Amino acid sequence: MNCPSLDKLTTELAKLPGIGPKTALRLSYFILRSPNKYVNELSNSLTDVKDKIQLCSKCYCYTEQDICHFCLDPHRSDNTLCIVENPSDISQIDSSGVFRGRYHVLHGVISPMEGIGPDDIKAKELFKRIEAVKDTDLAITEVILALDADLEGDTTALYIAKTLKTYDIKVTRIAHGVPIGGDIDYIDHRTLGRALENRVQL
Amino acid sequence: MNCPSLDKLTTELAKLPGIGPKTALRLSYFILRSPNKYVNELSNSLTDVKDKIQLCSKCYCYTEQDICHFCLDPHRSDNTLCIVENPSDISQIDSSGVFRGRYHVLHGVISPMEGIGPDDIKAKELFKRIEAVKDTDLAITEVILALDADLEGDTTALYIAKTLKTYDIKVTRIAHGVPIGGDIDYIDHRTLGRALENRVQL
Repeated sequence: MNCPSLDKLTTELAKLPGIGPKTALRLSYFILRSPNKYVNELSNSLTDVKDKIQLCSKCYCYTEQDICHFCLDPHRSDNTLCIVENPSDISQIDSSGVFRGRYHVLHGVISPMEGIGPDDIKAKELFKRIEAVKDTDLAITEVILALDADLEGDTTALYIAKTLKTYDIKVTRIAHGVPIGGDIDYIDHRTLGRALENRVQL
Repeated sequence: MNCPSLDKLTTELAKLPGIGPKTALRLSYFILRSPNKYVNELSNSLTDVKDKIQLCSKCYCYTEQDICHFCLDPHRSDNTLCIVENPSDISQIDSSGVFRGRYHVLHGVISPMEGIGPDDIKAKELFKRIEAVKDTDLAITEVILALDADLEGDTTALYIAKTLKTYDIKVTRIAHGVPIGGDIDYIDHRTLGRALENRVQL
């Protein structure tokens, strides 16, 4: 088509996850046909999230203020802490409605293969946070690790559990097993193995 | 998450074709994690296509100049015209390498159901263009209709063919049939019917 700006947009869109070159081209044509108002709003909202959103200075989740609303909410328990890898995990866990404590985002997991050590994630910040409230009313009594059940998640969970040994804190990990509504016929062997190991007495 | 700018970006992304609310949210988080440089480039390239790209004043395909490179190319025949619905169709047809004439983009097809008549597409412009070169060296001798094989495509093809009756112009339509490499077992009946009707003598 010999339109450098169209090629450029297609290249940039194809860098998004799950968007291949063909989809990117289709999206570019859609943008070209769209009203200016929509394209400007999309363009502005892209830069807006980068300008406005920062990490909460307590739990490191995304917020537009200094402290996020999870940390400010007076109806949440200060004594339980749920540890997640990414800010997006919080939305998922919170919409389950079961957990009403505070969160802490690691922004990564320990991965020796990729050269990511404990210092590259917000682990030090977690320990500092726990240490700061020790022997107060706000002291953490339980840390729930909501990390993936892969090698990196296991390593990170083990590291945190080990470091917290010196504290009087119950360290738990969310259960991995057969999903609700899942058909045992279609569940992989590792999940089924974990579900058997972690069986619950009725 | 209580981040209005994140919600806004997700809403805008979800308006793109093929992007549902879950994918939009995943893309929003990707944008948040991406370096500023990338997000700025994506944001600018969105507005850039709208600012820089216009319709070619001859064939109505997308171009950054007044006349597109298809219309300017001296190695293309001026006497055959390929009619397409959308500018994106041109890239597809051109990459087949078979057609070396000029193009004309209708920007739509006649659809009585949707209230789109001949005046709502670039049909008048097509006839004016043909009329303008009549009895010159540049006179159109063949018009190839590369429109979809649906009701709207058929209606539009018929309308153009009928209007061009008064001219000494061969009006053809691209063949619809079994795709190359297509398995007859899996081809729908209408396509197969069309392939039989339009059988070619060897």
